[in-house]
Amino acid sequence: MPESDTMVSSLIELKRTDGEGLVAQLTRQLRNLIATGRLGKGRVLPSSRRLASDLGVSRNTVTYAFEQLAAEGYLAASHGRRPVVTTDGHERIERGAMAAGERAGKPRLSSWATKLQRADWPMSYRGQFKPLRPGVGDFREFPNEVWARYLRRSAVHAGRRELGPINRLGLREALAHYLASSRGVRATADQIMILPSAQAALTLIAATLISPGDTVWVEDPGYPGATAAFRASGALLTGIRLDEQGMQRMPGLPAPRLIFMTPSHQHPTGRLMSLARRTGFLGASRPGRTWIVEDDYDGEFHYDSRPVPALQGLDAHGRVFYVGTFSKAMRSDIRLGYLVAPKALVGTLEIAQQHMGLIGASHVQDALADFITDGHFLAHLRRLRRLYHARRDHLVAELERHLGGTLSIEVPPGGIQLVVRLKRGRADRAVAKRLVAAGVETRALSSLAVDRPCDHGLLLGFAAWRESEISAAVRTMASCF
Amino acid sequence: MPESDTMVSSLIELKRTDGEGLVAQLTRQLRNLIATGRLGKGRVLPSSRRLASDLGVSRNTVTYAFEQLAAEGYLAASHGRRPVVTTDGHERIERGAMAAGERAGKPRLSSWATKLQRADWPMSYRGQFKPLRPGVGDFREFPNEVWARYLRRSAVHAGRRELGPINRLGLREALAHYLASSRGVRATADQIMILPSAQAALTLIAATLISPGDTVWVEDPGYPGATAAFRASGALLTGIRLDEQGMQRMPGLPAPRLIFMTPSHQHPTGRLMSLARRTGFLGASRPGRTWIVEDDYDGEFHYDSRPVPALQGLDAHGRVFYVGTFSKAMRSDIRLGYLVAPKALVGTLEIAQQHMGLIGASHVQDALADFITDGHFLAHLRRLRRLYHARRDHLVAELERHLGGTLSIEVPPGGIQLVVRLKRGRADRAVAKRLVAAGVETRALSSLAVDRPCDHGLLLGFAAWRESEISAAVRTMASCF
Repeated sequence: MPESDTMVSSLIELKRTDGEGLVAQLTRQLRNLIATGRLGKGRVLPSSRRLASDLGVSRNTVTYAFEQLAAEGYLAASHGRRPVVTTDGHERIERGAMAAGERAGKPRLSSWATKLQRADWPMSYRGQFKPLRPGVGDFREFPNEVWARYLRRSAVHAGRRELGPINRLGLREALAHYLASSRGVRATADQIMILPSAQAALTLIAATLISPGDTVWVEDPGYPGATAAFRASGALLTGIRLDEQGMQRMPGLPAPRLIFMTPSHQHPTGRLMSLARRTGFLGASRPGRTWIVEDDYDGEFHYDSRPVPALQGLDAHGRVFYVGTFSKAMRSDIRLGYLVAPKALVGTLEIAQQHMGLIGASHVQDALADFITDGHFLAHLRRLRRLYHARRDHLVAELERHLGGTLSIEVPPGGIQLVVRLKRGRADRAVAKRLVAAGVETRALSSLAVDRPCDHGLLLGFAAWRESEISAAVRTMASCF
Repeated sequence: MPESDTMVSSLIELKRTDGEGLVAQLTRQLRNLIATGRLGKGRVLPSSRRLASDLGVSRNTVTYAFEQLAAEGYLAASHGRRPVVTTDGHERIERGAMAAGERAGKPRLSSWATKLQRADWPMSYRGQFKPLRPGVGDFREFPNEVWARYLRRSAVHAGRRELGPINRLGLREALAHYLASSRGVRATADQIMILPSAQAALTLIAATLISPGDTVWVEDPGYPGATAAFRASGALLTGIRLDEQGMQRMPGLPAPRLIFMTPSHQHPTGRLMSLARRTGFLGASRPGRTWIVEDDYDGEFHYDSRPVPALQGLDAHGRVFYVGTFSKAMRSDIRLGYLVAPKALVGTLEIAQQHMGLIGASHVQDALADFITDGHFLAHLRRLRRLYHARRDHLVAELERHLGGTLSIEVPPGGIQLVVRLKRGRADRAVAKRLVAAGVETRALSSLAVDRPCDHGLLLGFAAWRESEISAAVRTMASCF
């Protein structure tokens, strides 16, 4: 018996009690021996008969292992000959490469990814979800049982669905109807794209329309997700001042490529943009030159008057994108938002949508279409509207009672959050930090500034919290000030 | 009665039988009158008492409508005074802007979107899904009932899930285990990102790592989705020739920024890349300088030997991305794919993932984790493997029988599609066009060429079609040649 043959079998240890079959064990161990260089290139292995006998296994076991390793390129095996190792151990190659890798340092990123690193979105709240985190709705109120039935029914009736369009027609139609009647959005179903989030819509628009150096106007202070999306695409941002009517017209500035705005409830102040301001921005934006992106992130929630129709509905020339989401009104983990796109861009955006993979699961889209059509969505919204209205009023009353001397409150006509300003010149970031340690999550207003320092204050969410939780949070805040 | 007051009420027509309430009807009609300019800026409206009397409605109805329009900015209304129209009709503004719009022509797109327009992905198969469309699995075999139960259960037990990570831990762990044992992928759960599709993974990688002018190597002929993703990001593509072992090493060329490959079953030829070739590419790619993207789009399906482990498992230095999808093994409308990322890039990619909105619904991720853990996924795969194996053999036998003189068949060791070459110099695009009209969908091989013309042939799918459907399709093909 040649020495080399003895050695191979002595390097292998098969366990019959192992969950892994004998062929799999043998293949794996031989592969490792080759990969680590212990069986080097050119090494002739024992015949399958010999190795089977040495290991006390059937000859087929060894034959299968050899065939597998030959298929993987580790061995050359031809009928009647003993197999030969055909490769050097890759681990040794790896070791050589390691030194180079250690010298390589940080990976070089694209300009887009580099800019994202510096952005203030997504926010990294640390640890637990705490009252009064802004920007969220109350998922505890969501009728999970009803929704689960719709999901199940939709999944069972899968049929040939997967061959249909990625933006499901039923949901597009249900949304077109809902948006027309509730928000005054004027769109046909084919203009509606179903995306995994509202942020996805902003990134899709930025990727499709923004070239490096393009000018984009945003509200100042504004929504950091939009700031990040446009800046990462290479846009030069101009922060536009707000007054009581929202974003101010800036007649002196040359027309930008895109204007991002939240006219229903300005983020973060909650202010409503006046009609005059809306028509002014529309009149000044030339179709095909200046696009307007209207983010109606919480437009479902109005308390002091009937909802103001969307800006999109005033536009007759396809220059307004309308962005919305189900994450405030349903659950955020449904992962469905939507974009109403100008007709001229629908085809382009659908190709881009497929490339980015911004596609919601069909069965969820179909379930949601039925959930809306059967009236559950509007019923849930009505319920939330009552709840959130009461919670807004409760938060305002509690703040006035406990912190009226310290904070001035801007009461928004709707939405899910409000801004309070610090009456004395406190540093809001330090305050927010102290509050989160005490159990109250807020967002420092000054962190939402774009071009110029803004007032110091806090953004507080009221929609996701029960009145008792709101009271407790305000008491905590009072003890911190 | 002043004339103007008479006129306002005469312009309004309220229907008590309408589903829309009286306040809503009145508000809408007044808004339209202002918006269209029929009630111009400065126009004084009748008092609420007068208008209510003229219209035969309660005074509250008119008061509510006025308040709403005041909130929207159409009217100035103060207590005890008659309301005044405060805005010009936006429709007139719109009309002025129209002329500008008509001159503006086609919208200017970003460089990314412009390049996508020219790409050959997504394929636009016209009309119905027909045999032998390549690239798809058989969704008719999927256990919809079982899956629907998992979805329902997961949706009911929503709890506080939505506050968890977007890449669900349970699914990451189930996938890490499955990929290690079945595909030899070496990764911890936190390296796994759950995305809506495999294409999303390619776009995410391209957006994060590719800067305009970077070199990317792709297989030639290759996968058009990858070609499109990297080209759109500004990469300069080099198509690398294939031989029997797959992509050839090109020692003379300077190292690229990224290499895209499909080593398990090269797309489209189905060839298996040899181990020597794999270690060669790994050895030549310096960590942090040259990335390798391994697309294992149908790596679950092997028929002639045990599956060859993934290239990713040979890499000890985090230079390989591994991309996979559930769309071939489950249903494509589940919209879940995954990316195993090098550890050094996980944090960066997760930020980019959130910006793009590449997030799968949590309840679907959780349901899938349980579906895998309970053994349904592997059981379904085993069943599909037997089915697809038989279908591959059946397609090969039918092609040899009916078209053996016209086509030469390359039998792949696994996967869901195969390539046939046209023996006489026919134009494959014309052939594919004729076939689709006759009811057989194929893809012309020459349409997958990157840098140089390749053989003329057809890419045929076998996985999604029953043997009777395959037989019928081959008979149709025979009648067309």
